[in-house]
Amino acid sequence: MTDALVLADLVEALPDGVLTTDPDILATYSIDRAMFVEPGRALALVRARDTSQVQAVMRIATKHRVPVVPQGARSGLSGAAIASDGCILLNVERMNKILEIDVPNRLVVTQPGIFNADLSHAVAEHGLYYPPDPASWEFCSIGGNLSTNSGGLCCVKYGVTTDYVLGLELVLADGRLLRTGRRTVKGVCGYDLTKLIVGSEGTLGIITEATLMLRPKSEQPLTIAGLYESVEAAAAAVSAVVAAGMVPSLLEFMDRASIDAVNESFHMGFEDHVQAVLLAQSDAGGERARADIEQFAAIFEAAGGEVMIADDPAEGEALLAARRQVLTAFERFGTTMIDDVCVPRDRLVDLVHGVQELARDYRVMVGVVGHAGDGNFHPTVCFDPTDSDEMQRAKELFDAIMVLGLELGGTITGEHGIGTMKIDLLEREVGEVSLELHRRVKAAFDPLGILNPGKVFRPLAH
Amino acid sequence: MTDALVLADLVEALPDGVLTTDPDILATYSIDRAMFVEPGRALALVRARDTSQVQAVMRIATKHRVPVVPQGARSGLSGAAIASDGCILLNVERMNKILEIDVPNRLVVTQPGIFNADLSHAVAEHGLYYPPDPASWEFCSIGGNLSTNSGGLCCVKYGVTTDYVLGLELVLADGRLLRTGRRTVKGVCGYDLTKLIVGSEGTLGIITEATLMLRPKSEQPLTIAGLYESVEAAAAAVSAVVAAGMVPSLLEFMDRASIDAVNESFHMGFEDHVQAVLLAQSDAGGERARADIEQFAAIFEAAGGEVMIADDPAEGEALLAARRQVLTAFERFGTTMIDDVCVPRDRLVDLVHGVQELARDYRVMVGVVGHAGDGNFHPTVCFDPTDSDEMQRAKELFDAIMVLGLELGGTITGEHGIGTMKIDLLEREVGEVSLELHRRVKAAFDPLGILNPGKVFRPLAH
Repeated sequence: MTDALVLADLVEALPDGVLTTDPDILATYSIDRAMFVEPGRALALVRARDTSQVQAVMRIATKHRVPVVPQGARSGLSGAAIASDGCILLNVERMNKILEIDVPNRLVVTQPGIFNADLSHAVAEHGLYYPPDPASWEFCSIGGNLSTNSGGLCCVKYGVTTDYVLGLELVLADGRLLRTGRRTVKGVCGYDLTKLIVGSEGTLGIITEATLMLRPKSEQPLTIAGLYESVEAAAAAVSAVVAAGMVPSLLEFMDRASIDAVNESFHMGFEDHVQAVLLAQSDAGGERARADIEQFAAIFEAAGGEVMIADDPAEGEALLAARRQVLTAFERFGTTMIDDVCVPRDRLVDLVHGVQELARDYRVMVGVVGHAGDGNFHPTVCFDPTDSDEMQRAKELFDAIMVLGLELGGTITGEHGIGTMKIDLLEREVGEVSLELHRRVKAAFDPLGILNPGKVFRPLAH
Repeated sequence: MTDALVLADLVEALPDGVLTTDPDILATYSIDRAMFVEPGRALALVRARDTSQVQAVMRIATKHRVPVVPQGARSGLSGAAIASDGCILLNVERMNKILEIDVPNRLVVTQPGIFNADLSHAVAEHGLYYPPDPASWEFCSIGGNLSTNSGGLCCVKYGVTTDYVLGLELVLADGRLLRTGRRTVKGVCGYDLTKLIVGSEGTLGIITEATLMLRPKSEQPLTIAGLYESVEAAAAAVSAVVAAGMVPSLLEFMDRASIDAVNESFHMGFEDHVQAVLLAQSDAGGERARADIEQFAAIFEAAGGEVMIADDPAEGEALLAARRQVLTAFERFGTTMIDDVCVPRDRLVDLVHGVQELARDYRVMVGVVGHAGDGNFHPTVCFDPTDSDEMQRAKELFDAIMVLGLELGGTITGEHGIGTMKIDLLEREVGEVSLELHRRVKAAFDPLGILNPGKVFRPLAH
């Protein structure tokens, strides 16, 4: 009965072509890229074209106390955007315009639905650079990047999404509009609600506009690779880079399982004795970049590595190809599930060996690639989805890797977020007092608990 | 009667030498460096030696619903640390130890009472660098820096305090301990309570420990100055630096009133036709830094500037001396009150001329210095405190400058915070909806409203 009333209100409030109840379309929009999660049954999908439509939906949702699941490109890996029972899927992918590029102040004002790559290309035309570069940048949206505080390969030098957010426009649970932050690069007027909202996975409000800080365009990077006969040697090289006070613009790691995968899929031809590969870049430009690469080379060799230096950007991309193609390579061996743990930088060896040991214990293939400079790794679990026993072991292994990350002083997620997949481990990481504060902060923004309920943490049972 | 019960509980809970009710000492600790604010009458001062004492005080405060004012070095300029009537002043200046310097992971774990300079020197011994460098760094504490999200001269390249905070330990209003964040450089497990607490000026809890990210030590900077016959020419140079994609490690501005002050006080010998001075640094090191300085020189000259380049770090410090001494120079002309507005970078001219016009209107001396690269300026109002009419005009001028900042699309505070001094303008900047959210978030942390009440924003009248 309520359902009919909600739908009637939505039909009345929204123009044609915005509201959908077609079961096939609802099914498509009820999932994101997370594995092992069961979406609920959505009531309706709204593909909003502007902020006022988002506000209208939230007013109706508040009136009827209906759950709302905010969505963008649905490229998330943690299930933050999947349907819950009886929900309105509130999708902002059509709100994908850049509203302003302010070159003198190095900022962009954008709607949330734009893809990261489209925004990056648009600002690049003005000599500007938006650093956060998740691997999914060609098909993930800025709104999702904001909601999960996305990282990427650039983080080791340029930080993560939250470091670039100056201000937000947010539709609150009751449909009112909240503006946070400002257009200036500094500002301490009141609480930093902006950075509280970044990473909150749609549980505090719906981002309808963002003001993002930009950097001047970087120089074309120079690239170097180091091939190692042991994980320990590669880890020693990473530590030595840090100890030398260097800040590479990229510092990536691949383990032997990842090397095997790219060898088989793309005939990369890494030799058998190579147990780990490091890739580093410098975008310092000119002589400074060349000096950086020479210093990397010296450090990589001192740690026992065989060094390959790219002579130009094209050759650099060829070196990086192995890293970029590793996920595709794994897909040849089954269904893949990409984990995301972050440990203190100096625990690289413990993490990689720990994962390798777990892979043996659970008899599931796992490759470890990751952002070595940040201690942020993506162990990729590879399994046969038609083998229910292996699938169960894969799922347990996925969780065991997060527990390993916690034991090493790390976090269960460095950039993918909690969503629904990691909800059981959040309390273990943040503790009881923090969980209570999370619930109180959530209630401050969303007293009825209608915004993305059951994501990030569970509501208290009533 | 309650007072006696509170004091009895404090005496019982705390060891000797921690609790004080001596009126002279209370008077000293009832103020910070803010002007024109009237402290209330404190009940007691607690100089805590450890976290458990902070917890004990908060449990007693909760039991009796007594206000608590958290304090550190009391160097703040906005009155966030001044006493309110009947409060316990809870000072953490004695909690000033560095607990750990983790070189491989480039982080420091510290208590809040340590001075910024002491922390900076300690990590420098390990080849590490803590960038946030407020002008008060030799006498301001890290806890205060966290509570106001301090900036400094480095921000144009290295950002502000919040960019360096990985995790916090916070004593909540009820005495429980909250741990936020982590030791890893990335992490998105749950809400970013860490960055919500940074800048909250003691209204959400009492910071008892912080885990701070460090950078590798920078190279000794090279310095250049540009002398201009108009503010417009200097502003054009700033814009050209930004447009060229340069990121100086310092980019400071002084107006003619500031130049007059340092001329008179320190015989700096700037000539009469100089209406504005820019100072820029590059810490890129080696040839890159020299190339930067040459590029600054070309840009500064193209904008009509007379250029002075320092040949070595000592000469660079001599060039910077004018900027560093300007506040001391103003003190010769009366009492000074340092405002703090931040505007979009390209509004420099409008801000400086606007302030100069206001100074004429209000017949009060004002010098404008500031962090030109961030659009963050410190108009310094100079007045005779024995002249009540001039004092009143100075106060009105101080407020008028903030309103000007807002009109130019800026914020009423870039780094000093709201405290009690700017409380009337906060709502104007953030708006009604945001103010309501501020109050709800505050209530989520501090349901009784005992933590630094009447600071940042006013509680709702009951």
